[in-house]
Amino acid sequence: MLATPCLLLMLAAPPAASAEVPERLLRATQGQSQAVARLAELTDTVGPRLAGSPGAAAAVAWALRAFEADGLKAWLEPVTVTAWTRGEERAELLVGGPVLRPQRLAVTALGNSPGTAGGGLSAEVIEVRSLEEAAALGAQARGRIVFFNHAMATGGPGYGDTAQLRTRGPATASRVGAAGALVRSLATASLRTPHTGMTSWEGGASPIPAAAVSVEDAELLHRLLARGPVRVQLTLGCGFASPATVESANVLAEVRGRERPEEVVLIGAHLDSWDLGTGAIDDGAGVVMVMEALRQISLQPQAPRRTVRAVLFMNEENGLEGGLGYARRHAAELPRTVAAVEADSGAGRPLGFSVTAGEVGLALVRRLASPLASLEATRVEAGAGGADISPLQEAGVPTLSLQQETSRYFDWHHSAADTFDKVVPAELIASAAAMTIMAWQLAEAPETLPRVTSSPPVKAPPVPAPDRR
Amino acid sequence: MLATPCLLLMLAAPPAASAEVPERLLRATQGQSQAVARLAELTDTVGPRLAGSPGAAAAVAWALRAFEADGLKAWLEPVTVTAWTRGEERAELLVGGPVLRPQRLAVTALGNSPGTAGGGLSAEVIEVRSLEEAAALGAQARGRIVFFNHAMATGGPGYGDTAQLRTRGPATASRVGAAGALVRSLATASLRTPHTGMTSWEGGASPIPAAAVSVEDAELLHRLLARGPVRVQLTLGCGFASPATVESANVLAEVRGRERPEEVVLIGAHLDSWDLGTGAIDDGAGVVMVMEALRQISLQPQAPRRTVRAVLFMNEENGLEGGLGYARRHAAELPRTVAAVEADSGAGRPLGFSVTAGEVGLALVRRLASPLASLEATRVEAGAGGADISPLQEAGVPTLSLQQETSRYFDWHHSAADTFDKVVPAELIASAAAMTIMAWQLAEAPETLPRVTSSPPVKAPPVPAPDRR
Repeated sequence: MLATPCLLLMLAAPPAASAEVPERLLRATQGQSQAVARLAELTDTVGPRLAGSPGAAAAVAWALRAFEADGLKAWLEPVTVTAWTRGEERAELLVGGPVLRPQRLAVTALGNSPGTAGGGLSAEVIEVRSLEEAAALGAQARGRIVFFNHAMATGGPGYGDTAQLRTRGPATASRVGAAGALVRSLATASLRTPHTGMTSWEGGASPIPAAAVSVEDAELLHRLLARGPVRVQLTLGCGFASPATVESANVLAEVRGRERPEEVVLIGAHLDSWDLGTGAIDDGAGVVMVMEALRQISLQPQAPRRTVRAVLFMNEENGLEGGLGYARRHAAELPRTVAAVEADSGAGRPLGFSVTAGEVGLALVRRLASPLASLEATRVEAGAGGADISPLQEAGVPTLSLQQETSRYFDWHHSAADTFDKVVPAELIASAAAMTIMAWQLAEAPETLPRVTSSPPVKAPPVPAPDRR
Repeated sequence: MLATPCLLLMLAAPPAASAEVPERLLRATQGQSQAVARLAELTDTVGPRLAGSPGAAAAVAWALRAFEADGLKAWLEPVTVTAWTRGEERAELLVGGPVLRPQRLAVTALGNSPGTAGGGLSAEVIEVRSLEEAAALGAQARGRIVFFNHAMATGGPGYGDTAQLRTRGPATASRVGAAGALVRSLATASLRTPHTGMTSWEGGASPIPAAAVSVEDAELLHRLLARGPVRVQLTLGCGFASPATVESANVLAEVRGRERPEEVVLIGAHLDSWDLGTGAIDDGAGVVMVMEALRQISLQPQAPRRTVRAVLFMNEENGLEGGLGYARRHAAELPRTVAAVEADSGAGRPLGFSVTAGEVGLALVRRLASPLASLEATRVEAGAGGADISPLQEAGVPTLSLQQETSRYFDWHHSAADTFDKVVPAELIASAAAMTIMAWQLAEAPETLPRVTSSPPVKAPPVPAPDRR
């Protein structure tokens, strides 16, 4: 039985004084936003910040300073991360078959790939379109470089499917005896641009050298293979340091709730980035949105009912230790963590939120999103939160993910082109405003979202959260 | 006094039998074109072919074989080229001032740049927007890296102006004592993509290390310089081999004229390319258009009135020795070279021709272009021919340049992204057809174009030909 919209609105209405806050926040986060300047500072002065690297350490120090400069209570929580480094990387077509002259291929190692030994790996290339085709190669794969070639569709919806080739392709190739793997870059545009990302050796697959090739070079390999056998020399200097782990940290700050400080609304993004670009869209944009949201909330005459906690997670990209570590460290507190919201979809304008909190939760978030009408960001749909907050969701915490315009997101994602110039200031500012309003609303609303059960009543999201990595 | 259009048409009308040829050629070059397959073969199996490199030598052998496979009389004419090689290249922001962490910049050496000595060049960066600003730096430039930062407009019209910064900027910086030069890439799109190109030490400037930076890195430098002093470490392994010259060749083929074989219509393109990409649009496309035009003309029941000669020039990009050498070797023949047509504007669809042959010549070319109406390629305007044929124009030869759709040309030009996948087959085929028809028409028309005088009656072209390099 449905309540009338009017009745629903009356039931949910917070006290009159609080109702003015979202409007005021909306004006402030748009008029006096620090988000753009902060993002320029992070990406220009710190730059790339792959987990375990000195860049990541500099980013941790920068974030702590930035929160403190905003007058917030901030602190670090230690996270041990696996430290993978890139090193030299090159690939070359070898003369023979259809290849008359050696030719460089634009490649970049995948996260967690081992390096090639000695003088590099020289092997014949064998092309497949899917994990199934790779698994079916059997003895044909032995000693070869398995080349995963599957075009990603423009716009982003194709990422969930094709990301499987990157995360699981090399392990699949290893299981049938391949000596190496090349994966067509997951990209919706390319100027000979390789896109990196994590690959996984789950299931006990023996690690083999694995790299992404640019879209152009994938098409070149495809055309050459139609002419005859093709051999590639692959040289990767990547691998894990010794010891393979480094001490790092999540960076936290919070505004204590005025009535129920023990109840927490978490707003998060990830501070680490891939090393090729400066991580402006993935996920520097999310970092500065979270910073701006907490700052604006702290500037209100009174704090919201509940605590709002900002968490900048470490190593979303290549291990998720920050997200997993937060869930472990705060396990006792998770029953009172009433919502977790992640911003990890770039710097585009806000569209709304995806929510994992059942149908009742969806309806509540729709009401809470109503002040976002002027931003045209009231679309609220069932769907996964971000990767960092997925361990919280497993513990029952309702999760939300800021949805943004992403038509060009995968042009830049995980490539050297993820840089500050791709950000349209007004769009980033609007997304920061959407995060601010939603954080305030969740922390102020009289009611809370339903907890997530192990079989949530909403449709499973099409893209599992970790695939966004 | 103007003739009526009808009278003009009657005066210009070739014999009835010949009038059918353009229509037949138009159908054949579109229905049975080898242009696309040839371009794939050149770019995929030979790949980059910088003058003086083994790739260029392989391209010369490939082109000779290809002409012969078409049943044409083909030969080589020796050309001595300067052989510049690229080697290692990297640049890094150094910690200090606003820079908290070292950060890689995407750079590529400019053609004719010397390498950096020993451990590379470390120097403070000073930004200028023009050659004039650089020249005015005086002692401020001493020991510094002068950074030429000027945005190129989208679409191509900006190339002529901004190319001056690349061709003349480093020499200008050298004259005021700079230790090195960085030039913002001439590009209408970028995914952190540096674009190379020739720089010149004319006027006796002492060579200094000179590289292009990607558009993104140019904007990064600009933002950082607003925060404080910025130092860059530049390491370039480029330079001239010892000896600095290599024997190479122009590749020629021809169809002898049936009535006036001593009169020559030259159709040309350049066989060399920059080394970063595979030179599909610059100028593999022109090469295969010229090959296809000569092949189709050779397949006609009878040869045209005059000789059609295809010339694939060597080292248009970094020295123009092929174009200069052809003009010297054929000096005695140039008074009977009735036209030279170059295709060096990519693989886009044809728009028409630019012509340097006076107003009378323009009118004739307009009539000869009429069979191109179905290709919408009848736009005929005064303008320069290509770089390779500019020495012929100086000797009085009327020149034409195929004009093409180039809205994305400078997204790829001189970068690693100049690869076969950028070619739209139907557009390349249409441009090959336009070259074929114009070559036939010029070789068959009863009349010839007026010779070019030292002060041609047409308006000087806005972009001097060598700037297309």
